[in-house]
Amino acid sequence: MPRRSPCGRIADVDTQQRQIGVTELALRDAHQSLMATRMALEDMVGACEDIDQAGYWSVECWGGATFDACIRFLNEDPWERLRTFRKLLPNSRLQMLLRGQNLLGYRHYGDDVVDHFVEKAAENGMDVFRTFDALNDTRNVERAIAAVKKAGKHAQGTICYTTSPLHDVDVYLQQARELRDVGVDSIAIKDMAALLKPQPAFDLVRAIKAEMPDMQVNVHCHATTGVTLVSLMKAIEGGADVVDTAISSLSLGPGHNPTESLQEMLEGTGFIADLDKVRLGRIKDHFAEIRPRYTQFMSSFNVETDIFDSQIPGGMISNMESQLKQQGAGDKLKEVLEEVPRVRKDAGYPPLVTPSSQIVGTQAVFNVLMGRYKVLTAEFADLMLGYYGSVMGELDKEVVDKARQQTGKEPIDVRPADLIEDEWDSLHDEAAQLDGFDGSDEDVLTYAMFPKVAHGFFGTRAEGPKNVGKDPAELEAEKAAAAMGDSKTGPVRGPITYEITIDGKKHSVAVKPA
Amino acid sequence: MPRRSPCGRIADVDTQQRQIGVTELALRDAHQSLMATRMALEDMVGACEDIDQAGYWSVECWGGATFDACIRFLNEDPWERLRTFRKLLPNSRLQMLLRGQNLLGYRHYGDDVVDHFVEKAAENGMDVFRTFDALNDTRNVERAIAAVKKAGKHAQGTICYTTSPLHDVDVYLQQARELRDVGVDSIAIKDMAALLKPQPAFDLVRAIKAEMPDMQVNVHCHATTGVTLVSLMKAIEGGADVVDTAISSLSLGPGHNPTESLQEMLEGTGFIADLDKVRLGRIKDHFAEIRPRYTQFMSSFNVETDIFDSQIPGGMISNMESQLKQQGAGDKLKEVLEEVPRVRKDAGYPPLVTPSSQIVGTQAVFNVLMGRYKVLTAEFADLMLGYYGSVMGELDKEVVDKARQQTGKEPIDVRPADLIEDEWDSLHDEAAQLDGFDGSDEDVLTYAMFPKVAHGFFGTRAEGPKNVGKDPAELEAEKAAAAMGDSKTGPVRGPITYEITIDGKKHSVAVKPA
Repeated sequence: MPRRSPCGRIADVDTQQRQIGVTELALRDAHQSLMATRMALEDMVGACEDIDQAGYWSVECWGGATFDACIRFLNEDPWERLRTFRKLLPNSRLQMLLRGQNLLGYRHYGDDVVDHFVEKAAENGMDVFRTFDALNDTRNVERAIAAVKKAGKHAQGTICYTTSPLHDVDVYLQQARELRDVGVDSIAIKDMAALLKPQPAFDLVRAIKAEMPDMQVNVHCHATTGVTLVSLMKAIEGGADVVDTAISSLSLGPGHNPTESLQEMLEGTGFIADLDKVRLGRIKDHFAEIRPRYTQFMSSFNVETDIFDSQIPGGMISNMESQLKQQGAGDKLKEVLEEVPRVRKDAGYPPLVTPSSQIVGTQAVFNVLMGRYKVLTAEFADLMLGYYGSVMGELDKEVVDKARQQTGKEPIDVRPADLIEDEWDSLHDEAAQLDGFDGSDEDVLTYAMFPKVAHGFFGTRAEGPKNVGKDPAELEAEKAAAAMGDSKTGPVRGPITYEITIDGKKHSVAVKPA
Repeated sequence: MPRRSPCGRIADVDTQQRQIGVTELALRDAHQSLMATRMALEDMVGACEDIDQAGYWSVECWGGATFDACIRFLNEDPWERLRTFRKLLPNSRLQMLLRGQNLLGYRHYGDDVVDHFVEKAAENGMDVFRTFDALNDTRNVERAIAAVKKAGKHAQGTICYTTSPLHDVDVYLQQARELRDVGVDSIAIKDMAALLKPQPAFDLVRAIKAEMPDMQVNVHCHATTGVTLVSLMKAIEGGADVVDTAISSLSLGPGHNPTESLQEMLEGTGFIADLDKVRLGRIKDHFAEIRPRYTQFMSSFNVETDIFDSQIPGGMISNMESQLKQQGAGDKLKEVLEEVPRVRKDAGYPPLVTPSSQIVGTQAVFNVLMGRYKVLTAEFADLMLGYYGSVMGELDKEVVDKARQQTGKEPIDVRPADLIEDEWDSLHDEAAQLDGFDGSDEDVLTYAMFPKVAHGFFGTRAEGPKNVGKDPAELEAEKAAAAMGDSKTGPVRGPITYEITIDGKKHSVAVKPA
């Protein structure tokens, strides 16, 4: 099978078995979901050769949160990260997650910025652009998809999977048609909250493949609810071509299903994921060793099926909880959780994914604290007025009226970005004012995505990347101490030497347990 | 559906959907697999009402390891535990795991002891006896099954699932016929190492149901390799009637698939597990709160597919590792792991489950340390001579000869227990000698199962059960400290004393939160 042809489809191998492609998530969504996107590039480098040779259909390695975390926490240039992956994964399709007209940021950008971003990402090595819109509004991904096609890369359209009284196979099939009509090379079903059950997975994929047999269908599921490896099995039976998994040592919990389990699961089924087991074993071992460095960023989450009823992703609940606590209203969580589905209904049943999950959740908090729709957040008002795009369901007319009164803005039904003027030149001028700006288009884009954070990053970039994980030497010492010591009272470390300044005088201090 | 009828089968509900029964494992195999069987009865009591009312087909709550742990670690009478469950779960079928002629111990017992044990277990409240033999030798379960039938209870025969060049659907189907012929009420497929992949699960269940449409088929899978929820789905499609799961807060890792995920998975498939979601939620919450008490007994295991190739269960590897270290040969593990499949082949491909896993593993260690079959363990010699029963494959003739020479015993081909005289009376007399023996048949059986441990337990029984988990107050304090303190350096407890050396001079320093 020729590797890296940007629009390459999965070819059947020379047997009765249908070949299933695999997208490895270890370098992006896996550590984003499990360890708050904190993994340093240096902790990934050692696995790249094996990842490159294991036989994946693509390697997901870039997206909004990784970009953000690079400049916010790791003092690492995300473009340099991309170039490094390109160098270390020469045979692989590199894949990214792109928020349509939002690119990697949280607002709609002018079309010229979209064009520049895609061009530069392609130039720096990106092959597959998985492009989604939180509201499933195709108009919000059109421009990005056109830019990807222009760059000669693989444009993947995305269906954000959610459930509601309105969402059924026909709705998603209609969206698939729209994506086909704007020229995507493949369609991904993106199940960010692990809501996609086996039978709906089968029905949805089969419906798309029945109407568009030549359209490659990718399926991305989180593992949160525990059912989605079964959903991948059913999606494959329904005709899915490529599925997303993460190497076992970076899998499960709020992350994804294990790559090795996916491969083993298929034995004898008539489907095969033809990955190199020896290399998978090495990739697993690599990240099993790295993982303990990031324990501090991990939750002890196991599996959670409540979301099937509540529709509220775990991350959203903890967000709302902290908002409530800041208002001294920590006891109102239950009311807020009951308010969310109502707000979602009034807003026309948007999928709950960044940024709609935050917008709906925050409005639910406001409703409980201040009375229903007494105060609208600016973002919720924009959502009700169409400034994020159009949604599936009907908008509540009274709430739309309140949004209009409160903001003085009128509802729109055009593509939101049609109202945004070209802005590349002004963004360039603003970025050029910043200390540390290196004059590149990449820096302009970094600034455009996260203006404030970019400012800080440009100033400190010269210091080089930092690893926020635990030091391997410290981990070793802890392991050794735990092996000989009492695991209940915590690791016994050897003497540790500090330099301590007391009343202005420096002392060398060695500390060990008495 | 009438509950607790001992031979009750799953009835289709009045819809198109086929009703799937669920066996809840929380009270036995779940905590055995996740927390070394250490959970105290008092930590289960609070969940019993919800478990009793949730709609399970059965509640597994008793077996060899729980019996052993009760008297070895918890100073708790296992018969009293059973009576407590009977009282707290009046509407449920209580289920146990019985090692055939081994009962709950590690040797074959005389038939009269088997009869007494089953009678007493039934009398104390047991309904469903899942009866297995490690070698899948039906002769080793015949007597126990007859005793269960005599007591009017549900006799479940068991196929221990393994893979080898010899094990295929026909082999297992033949075993199913043998079990049917000795009169079982149902057949369980027991996948203790999570080796049962989806397609073989489907093929195996379908083959049994095709030939015996009225035979209830139960499927028990561990989650270790990450694929077995898919296997349960396929087993159900193949005709399985009842599947085993554990409530989500006691699931996954080396344990089992989550009960809630199983139920959700079935939506829309034409199958339904009709459990009460509200009660499941409460059971989940109960054990989520209990679980942290036993962290010290838990491993950080996630998912592991290596066993598909190595055939060696994780628990067996750690056993062999510690044997090797005791011999100062920790560096030989790799050789031993390579030796295991050879020993298993020479022994005729027994499934690797207690006690065959220990017997094969220890012989592999001996082979590496002392030369291949230079010394046979007594147990391995017995295995080669047929004293554990018969195996699928051919035994290596040379090794059989060595076993004969070394032990002076001749190979047998009769049922091993045919060579054991009735022993109830002598066991009774021995038990009666022990301080603390209460004169009951139950105490005789406790002594018969674990003579040495029973001796100690009888002496301390009056002190009452102890809980080896962490004290809830201590857990609370840790949580509070962690919430306000630095999670990286662990909970801040009371004053901690250090020996500190400053500029070469030692000081004793006490540190406490300001």
